[in-house]
Amino acid sequence: MEEGKATTTTTTTCSSSMRKEEEENGWWGQRSWKLLTAVRNRAPLIQCITNFVSMDIMANTLLASGASPAMVHCLHEIPDFTPHAHALCINIGTLSPDWIASMKAAASLAVRSGKPWVLDPVAVSASDFRMKACLELVELRPTVIRGNASEIIALSSASLGPTKGVDSSHGTLDAVEAAKSLAQSSGAIVAVSGAVDIITDGQHVVGAHNGVAMMQQITATGCAVTALIAAFVAANPLDAFEATASALSIFGVAGEVGLDMAKGPASLRMHLIDSLHGLDEVTVLSRVVITHMS
Amino acid sequence: MEEGKATTTTTTTCSSSMRKEEEENGWWGQRSWKLLTAVRNRAPLIQCITNFVSMDIMANTLLASGASPAMVHCLHEIPDFTPHAHALCINIGTLSPDWIASMKAAASLAVRSGKPWVLDPVAVSASDFRMKACLELVELRPTVIRGNASEIIALSSASLGPTKGVDSSHGTLDAVEAAKSLAQSSGAIVAVSGAVDIITDGQHVVGAHNGVAMMQQITATGCAVTALIAAFVAANPLDAFEATASALSIFGVAGEVGLDMAKGPASLRMHLIDSLHGLDEVTVLSRVVITHMS
Amino acid sequence: MEEGKATTTTTTTCSSSMRKEEEENGWWGQRSWKLLTAVRNRAPLIQCITNFVSMDIMANTLLASGASPAMVHCLHEIPDFTPHAHALCINIGTLSPDWIASMKAAASLAVRSGKPWVLDPVAVSASDFRMKACLELVELRPTVIRGNASEIIALSSASLGPTKGVDSSHGTLDAVEAAKSLAQSSGAIVAVSGAVDIITDGQHVVGAHNGVAMMQQITATGCAVTALIAAFVAANPLDAFEATASALSIFGVAGEVGLDMAKGPASLRMHLIDSLHGLDEVTVLSRVVITHMS
Repeated sequence: MEEGKATTTTTTTCSSSMRKEEEENGWWGQRSWKLLTAVRNRAPLIQCITNFVSMDIMANTLLASGASPAMVHCLHEIPDFTPHAHALCINIGTLSPDWIASMKAAASLAVRSGKPWVLDPVAVSASDFRMKACLELVELRPTVIRGNASEIIALSSASLGPTKGVDSSHGTLDAVEAAKSLAQSSGAIVAVSGAVDIITDGQHVVGAHNGVAMMQQITATGCAVTALIAAFVAANPLDAFEATASALSIFGVAGEVGLDMAKGPASLRMHLIDSLHGLDEVTVLSRVVITHMS
Repeated sequence: MEEGKATTTTTTTCSSSMRKEEEENGWWGQRSWKLLTAVRNRAPLIQCITNFVSMDIMANTLLASGASPAMVHCLHEIPDFTPHAHALCINIGTLSPDWIASMKAAASLAVRSGKPWVLDPVAVSASDFRMKACLELVELRPTVIRGNASEIIALSSASLGPTKGVDSSHGTLDAVEAAKSLAQSSGAIVAVSGAVDIITDGQHVVGAHNGVAMMQQITATGCAVTALIAAFVAANPLDAFEATASALSIFGVAGEVGLDMAKGPASLRMHLIDSLHGLDEVTVLSRVVITHMS
Repeated sequence: MEEGKATTTTTTTCSSSMRKEEEENGWWGQRSWKLLTAVRNRAPLIQCITNFVSMDIMANTLLASGASPAMVHCLHEIPDFTPHAHALCINIGTLSPDWIASMKAAASLAVRSGKPWVLDPVAVSASDFRMKACLELVELRPTVIRGNASEIIALSSASLGPTKGVDSSHGTLDAVEAAKSLAQSSGAIVAVSGAVDIITDGQHVVGAHNGVAMMQQITATGCAVTALIAAFVAANPLDAFEATASALSIFGVAGEVGLDMAKGPASLRMHLIDSLHGLDEVTVLSRVVITHMS
């Protein structure tokens, strides 16, 4: 997410293409607003098994969106609790063996209960331990996987298996190709956060252009938006692709509005959450920029 | 806690009753101010064994009140540490088996050392595991139990035992009745947070009318006020009822003052803590509203 | 760190001494600015094994300084991860046995990999369990140890061994003497936070005079500055003494600048991080006050 990136989509000189893009944005703006409204009205219960760093901002982001967060990570509670959640968010940021057992049990139960679940493969290439855990989680068929480019490229590459990984002559994959490949092999919607957020189901690709660069200087904003995706998917389980793109743009719009009041990353964090809480229809419709990329 | 609820206490038309109420508020305002001043002067050491989500806001709330927080949860440290704390706060928000062992050891030792301890039964009905742990903690005789209505109703009902629970013909108990019942069976002061906070020792009931609805959209404000109750009880161990009601109103007043500067839940969080730190006598005396309810 | 303490260094009436002090500050200001710039340019990866309370503010402080935080605590990940970090920060705030094993493994590997590591002995005297763990960590030769006066005095005294500890006729040591003694016995740079921060290598002692008293009313600011020291040492591994003093003053300057906009500890926390992110050369050169104390 980069400052001013929203304006880069209007550089085309072809007026009919501009009009088409505006119509597209109008459609996405309306969808995003409809989904945010659904989250506010339904207050979906989102179970989060997430890293220690992210818990405060994740819970506050979910509350500001209208969702209801529940940080429940204990293996003994999952049989009772997970079936009642509307979606599950799993984030491997501060992983340890006992938490992996809970993550797997919760993900399995979410799938069996017909509930969507979202995976955030934080720093997946930091260790073999983390990569192995993450690959096992991917086997449990997440509805959505969201990471940054290096995480998605590493996970996508590892998902192809050791042989193909070694054989790969072009080194690391391009982020879009990696995301499409991971989406195809896992069956998940895959989102890659960056200057433009990329969302793909393995075939279609859209870019979500909202957000500001300074959001990267606030810890756990990536974790927070993954939880927001879980809330949007809970509100729209039949179209996880649309929910994922909308959640990323809505969070980005909150950052854009917040930046106008911010003097640095700590005040941006505050204004971002305040803005998410207060977003109105006019702001969403005029700011959401999501475009086709393939 | 609901916006504007403080004004609902002045709707009576009986002027002598109004005068009595004003006198009552004046008395409670003075008590609340005296207790806040005692916390500021004595800086009681509050051991917190609490959930991961709440640690930052809980520690900062205690510091802003003048108390000294200590997040010490390891079983091996309890024999050395707990006897030196002035009060103990136990919160089951992100429970796991090893933490339960620490909670029980610390609660037992606090009681043996003559120190007050406060229980926050977060989401007690989320799982059998959580309810069982919570009932065992209640057996260890907390000085105060604070939760929201659904938590107190569930815990009170479960405390009556499985037979009575099943026999209960009127389904869930009313929050006030549940609180009184739990106070009687446990020996604790029981507080129920809500549009009006209810405080009871099993016989007397008062309502604390301060606070604003938006505080519920900040994660762990309930956890934070439970810790503040521990600080107030530490400063006034001979009257936990008064300390509990005062802490709830003081936190609510800080929220009311904070709301005047807030643009959403994240800025309210900041202004609430700033306000708690800066509360002066005039503000406390003019704003605290605590009334008899039985 | 005390409000207005920066001005206490100009009370001498000897103008040549004043000139010397100004030159000294000029030198330290330039060094501090150079190190902050190095952190911003190199974005050192700082592995943090730290307490739960501090994770959010520590990660955000590192990000605001330009460093890259990584909260990785699992024993299984240390062999893969620690050699890639540029420095390691170990903080015992919410200690438990499994975390101690990780801390020792990471510290040992950092030393073997030639990477600096920094120890924060939070509340070291709270229990025998904590002191024992801390003494074992000191054996692993931290590059820097930072604590408050009571922590450094307790750790220094315990490092002298039980016999000398018992024999000690003058009770607790003076903070400066304790710091020098601990530096000599451990080989670490030792920093003591206080009204004036003290930094020593066992022979030389300097005082860092920046900061404001209200920073103590924000939880985990001490933890955060220890992590900032790790970032500065990573940027200047050949002179940990200089890096430690500079990090303490830079954090203090950010607090001074932040206080001008703050209304209490919660807004100070926000403005401190914003200010750290935005610090410019003029501010650093004009505000850093570090003086020789022996």
